[in-house]
Amino acid sequence: MNGNGPNKMVDPLEDPLPGLGTYEDFNTIDWVREKSKDRDRHREITNKSKESTVALLHSVSDAFSGWLLMLLVGLMAGGGAYIHDMHEIRLFFFFPPNVTLLSFSLQGAFAYIVNYLMYIVWALLFALLAVALVRAFAPYACGSGIPEIKTILSGFIIRGYLGKWTLIIKTITLVLAVSSGLSLGKEGPLVHVACCCANILCHLFTKYRKNEAKRREVLSAAAAVGVSVAFGAPIGGVLFSLEEVSYYFPLKTLWRSFFAALVAAFTLHSINPFGNSRLVLFYVEFHAPWHLVELVPFILLGIFGGLWGALFIRANIAWCRRRKSTRLGHYPVMEVLVVTALTAVLAYPNSYTRMSGAELIAELFNDCSLLDSSQLCGYKPPTNTSKTGVGNSLADRPAGEGLYTALWQLALALVFKMMITVITFGMKVPSGLFIPSMAVGAIAGRLLGVGMEQLAYYNHDSFIFKGWCSPGADCITPGLYAMVGAASCLGGVTRMTVSLVVIMFELTGGLEYIVPLMAATMTSKWVADALGREGIYEAHIRLNGYPFLEPKEEFGHSSLTVDVMRPRRSDPALAVLTQEGMTVGEVEALVESTRYSGFPVVVSQESQRLVGFVLRRDLLISIDNARKRQEGVVSASQVVFTEHAPAQADDGPPPLRLRGIVDLSPFTVTDHTPMDITVDIFRKLGLRQCLVTHNGRLLGIITKKDILKHMAQIANRDPDSILFN
Amino acid sequence: MNGNGPNKMVDPLEDPLPGLGTYEDFNTIDWVREKSKDRDRHREITNKSKESTVALLHSVSDAFSGWLLMLLVGLMAGGGAYIHDMHEIRLFFFFPPNVTLLSFSLQGAFAYIVNYLMYIVWALLFALLAVALVRAFAPYACGSGIPEIKTILSGFIIRGYLGKWTLIIKTITLVLAVSSGLSLGKEGPLVHVACCCANILCHLFTKYRKNEAKRREVLSAAAAVGVSVAFGAPIGGVLFSLEEVSYYFPLKTLWRSFFAALVAAFTLHSINPFGNSRLVLFYVEFHAPWHLVELVPFILLGIFGGLWGALFIRANIAWCRRRKSTRLGHYPVMEVLVVTALTAVLAYPNSYTRMSGAELIAELFNDCSLLDSSQLCGYKPPTNTSKTGVGNSLADRPAGEGLYTALWQLALALVFKMMITVITFGMKVPSGLFIPSMAVGAIAGRLLGVGMEQLAYYNHDSFIFKGWCSPGADCITPGLYAMVGAASCLGGVTRMTVSLVVIMFELTGGLEYIVPLMAATMTSKWVADALGREGIYEAHIRLNGYPFLEPKEEFGHSSLTVDVMRPRRSDPALAVLTQEGMTVGEVEALVESTRYSGFPVVVSQESQRLVGFVLRRDLLISIDNARKRQEGVVSASQVVFTEHAPAQADDGPPPLRLRGIVDLSPFTVTDHTPMDITVDIFRKLGLRQCLVTHNGRLLGIITKKDILKHMAQIANRDPDSILFN
Repeated sequence: MNGNGPNKMVDPLEDPLPGLGTYEDFNTIDWVREKSKDRDRHREITNKSKESTVALLHSVSDAFSGWLLMLLVGLMAGGGAYIHDMHEIRLFFFFPPNVTLLSFSLQGAFAYIVNYLMYIVWALLFALLAVALVRAFAPYACGSGIPEIKTILSGFIIRGYLGKWTLIIKTITLVLAVSSGLSLGKEGPLVHVACCCANILCHLFTKYRKNEAKRREVLSAAAAVGVSVAFGAPIGGVLFSLEEVSYYFPLKTLWRSFFAALVAAFTLHSINPFGNSRLVLFYVEFHAPWHLVELVPFILLGIFGGLWGALFIRANIAWCRRRKSTRLGHYPVMEVLVVTALTAVLAYPNSYTRMSGAELIAELFNDCSLLDSSQLCGYKPPTNTSKTGVGNSLADRPAGEGLYTALWQLALALVFKMMITVITFGMKVPSGLFIPSMAVGAIAGRLLGVGMEQLAYYNHDSFIFKGWCSPGADCITPGLYAMVGAASCLGGVTRMTVSLVVIMFELTGGLEYIVPLMAATMTSKWVADALGREGIYEAHIRLNGYPFLEPKEEFGHSSLTVDVMRPRRSDPALAVLTQEGMTVGEVEALVESTRYSGFPVVVSQESQRLVGFVLRRDLLISIDNARKRQEGVVSASQVVFTEHAPAQADDGPPPLRLRGIVDLSPFTVTDHTPMDITVDIFRKLGLRQCLVTHNGRLLGIITKKDILKHMAQIANRDPDSILFN
Repeated sequence: MNGNGPNKMVDPLEDPLPGLGTYEDFNTIDWVREKSKDRDRHREITNKSKESTVALLHSVSDAFSGWLLMLLVGLMAGGGAYIHDMHEIRLFFFFPPNVTLLSFSLQGAFAYIVNYLMYIVWALLFALLAVALVRAFAPYACGSGIPEIKTILSGFIIRGYLGKWTLIIKTITLVLAVSSGLSLGKEGPLVHVACCCANILCHLFTKYRKNEAKRREVLSAAAAVGVSVAFGAPIGGVLFSLEEVSYYFPLKTLWRSFFAALVAAFTLHSINPFGNSRLVLFYVEFHAPWHLVELVPFILLGIFGGLWGALFIRANIAWCRRRKSTRLGHYPVMEVLVVTALTAVLAYPNSYTRMSGAELIAELFNDCSLLDSSQLCGYKPPTNTSKTGVGNSLADRPAGEGLYTALWQLALALVFKMMITVITFGMKVPSGLFIPSMAVGAIAGRLLGVGMEQLAYYNHDSFIFKGWCSPGADCITPGLYAMVGAASCLGGVTRMTVSLVVIMFELTGGLEYIVPLMAATMTSKWVADALGREGIYEAHIRLNGYPFLEPKEEFGHSSLTVDVMRPRRSDPALAVLTQEGMTVGEVEALVESTRYSGFPVVVSQESQRLVGFVLRRDLLISIDNARKRQEGVVSASQVVFTEHAPAQADDGPPPLRLRGIVDLSPFTVTDHTPMDITVDIFRKLGLRQCLVTHNGRLLGIITKKDILKHMAQIANRDPDSILFN
């Protein structure tokens, strides 16, 4: 980027000064510069490889280091997920066995109360430990981490967010948080954990340690790995990374993500944590096909999922905003304890809320057969009133008392989960949203499914069911409804579509149910989008004021670049450096009197013809270094950005030549460029800033932050909510 | 793009003149301009939608037209594929029944010879009909079509390539070509057929008819649909489109492709062409897991696939080049007939070459059980010498006479297929490469698989097999080897990875075999890439001189933009227009004396400060129109590109104002920009040309063709092989 063509001898990218070309915390990287740096490095290695065998070996190992890194990420994340699962299971041993309210006797009641209290105490202990560890050691370990990872992948820097402390503390506290019975899942945080693994492993390879763009390629793959181990769905994981998380996802990353996701799934599979030979989290196998008429309830589930998703996002964001702006935010530990206590008190009496979210979903997804002893399968035995169908053990049956009890409990669980998740997500403990959302949808789906089943059983002669649902046939599968409902609600909250369907497809392993899933998730997305454009992760990104330029949303306004750039018409002129004629003192004064992160270099103040762009950080480091190391550099020394130093007076101090730090290929657009094109350029090239010209003269500058502020203004939001550059 | 901000009253994009903003045949589109045009259209509809209910309905229907189009494409392609399959089956009825050489008697010999001759005559008839139809009605219907579709999707225009005649003729002749027994498949051409369907359906919607960029989004989805119906693999199809064919693949297209691919698969599934309830082309179900040791033969298959892929590409390209450069190319009908006759004569005696490629692959993929009567399963019955394993009907058994015969025939078939495919692909009939490549790999895999099986059977005590392959166990599945081999060879030829593995995964429906497939395809890609960077489609693109900027390959050279741009140092200066001061006659003279497709507009010849860029086509149309319609426009009229017309002499003719056709936001890079960045900009933004500046002055222009020529030069190829702009 710095014009280091073959004709230049001094290459400023060779790290002549430490810190040159690096970024400060909470800043946006320049993708083009980073990628160009990597290509320079690669070119150099390739050129050297012709010289000696050692260099050739270095070149080969460099080429394969990406794959090796992927292998390590896969192994580490796969192994980590296993340890994680084991811990969770161990911790669950502390819990008292299931004693339901039905076994009511005096002794039973006493035991029940003791267990109830024990449950609450354990829950509070786990939660306290979790929040204390997060507060003490790694504040970044809280939440799901996906909004921040999205922002980081789009080119933002948050130091320590993917560090070893975050990894360790998040792994431990996630187990504690899940064990405390809070309405949260571990799937989202597993993506964060996988990204931490990848980031730490990146330090083993210079190629990835030193280059922010290359590292982000690895992190994209790690996000895929996280979902791959969370659900046992490698293809779904890759598509999740592509659709939901990643910003820059070249084909090379696609291959590598897929490889890493497979390695991770295979590693986990080899250790076999789910206790069966399948590697998926919720393995389901349905026996009956679905009928076209059932698309109506499936689409209803999609509408429910979309509505719930949109409402959940609004409620959760409102609650989080309240936490930020009121005194509530000052007592995070207390908040966690109160919510945990509330959850425990309300959850224990109902067996469907007492069990973990994953268990609940697994039970709801299950198909009933006569042998199943679950309450959900409390049907009356076949009465044989119908003479046609005898002996089909899977046939639709009338609901019995057990099932009616289960339905009531499920309805209460639905209301409870819908409420409690809103205040749980965003607390200072690791908390994922996949499982709670899926649980809400699965409950709703199962309720509708059982309803449909009973409707079909009692009305099999009506025009709707006639022809495909004869008595004694197994025509409605409530488990499938639960699955469709789970997909709808997760889709409504996260706005995933393809990746969600593929994850679900990998869970069932059959193409037959893709159409219901597709119909429901699409409906869900449309309904939710109609009520609010943003998914939960984008909403949290905006809440935190991160500079994230959504790649999916089109810029719909008809403004021109001149309306968005700085300086505005009333502002003072743009601060520029001239390529010669300024002294070190003048440059320092200019830098100190402004807070811009970079300055354009022009031929002269009069012509305003653009030469290049120099970053504030690089300028300060270089001048500082020159003052320390180079002789004769004083405030009166000329700063020269041209290739050849001008003829100078003999008596003056020698000039300070800084062409090496000038980016001689800054991006420019004209003032007449419609903003939609400018936004497109920023998105596609991953720019940080762009200069604006008019008829060949430099007119102003436009940064990512300016664009985001402008977009906020158009959407009637506070432009000052964009906090970072 | 044309600076149509809110402050301008006359919008040049409203089609004031027919032809303005369109492209000529064999030219590259400007993605940015097309997308900007669509956003303008969308914005206008959205703004209008607030005014009346009709406009609101129009806006809603516009928003859903994309999905409707996808639905139609899915239905049409799914239905088309069905008709296609049926036809093929019907045509196969003409063929004589299988009479093998084994039933040798005098009468049998006579019948055999008659059948042999009949086979050859039928084959020649089919081939003649196919090539005659192609030559007579739709010359674009030949070949696989994928190289051209890749080029079209990257932004090239080939009128008629996706037209209705191509669709009709390709559908008919593809059936004929497959039926003629040539070594070709129908899967690649099905992608072309699906794209034709999509292109024709695009004409129903203004949004897609008028916008080249939007239409290409639909075509990307159609490519996914093609693979989806060809293999019954919707997810694999979407990934195929993403990995192999598409250029611009936003997330919206991902969702829509997936939807269309599902609709198509579901349509085909509902009509059920493969005669079973599965919708995949080769449904396989294996009973034995694979062992880690088996990765060695799988990787060997990967190496074989890579070697064959690279060699095939070289041989095929050499043959196609010979066809282009020698007299061979003048007799395409004769060539087809000779190759058909050769194929028929050599293929008939061997039952494995006589059957169609798809049948052969299905047979090779199959797992043997005791009941299977195929020659490939001609094992000796279990001898019960081992006392441990009794009654396992799937156990490894020693090869019998039938199997040995089959192996000989397969080996001969392998050599035959490897040779004949080289001269078949590229002839003037529709011909796909998927099935022949897979057949070669499947034969090689099956041979190796049977070899491994026998090795394991006779050496189950050796250290390699001990522990996992006890006597009487079913430890080696030759069908799996065939599948891995097929994936390797297809991967070697096309360089697909993820999509290939996913297609194979969808065929088996189990995650268990992903690791072997992944290992083999990765090895195959690495081996093939080491021998030649290009896949068969890229090689054919280059052979035809299409302007295709490969998105996967990194630009590795360290040249600067100034080295690649025109004019070169020795050339005459760049032809520019000044924003005022030129007359109509001068402009016309400039346009006629050059062949450039566009001209930069500058403030003045002295300052060379850039104002905008005007396309030759737009300029000619506008001047021509003005001369016809506008009064007082003569050769001496001033042409004015500024916003406000200059004060003019009273006696002169009125000026011709052409600011409306000037692109006021042309892309610029500086002369110091490294070429890798410039190439990246061209790729990511889909540019056609970019202006080059130095210190704010216009210096030159760089086009896609210049870049491709430069890249050809670096790779020591003929730069003049790039034929189009």
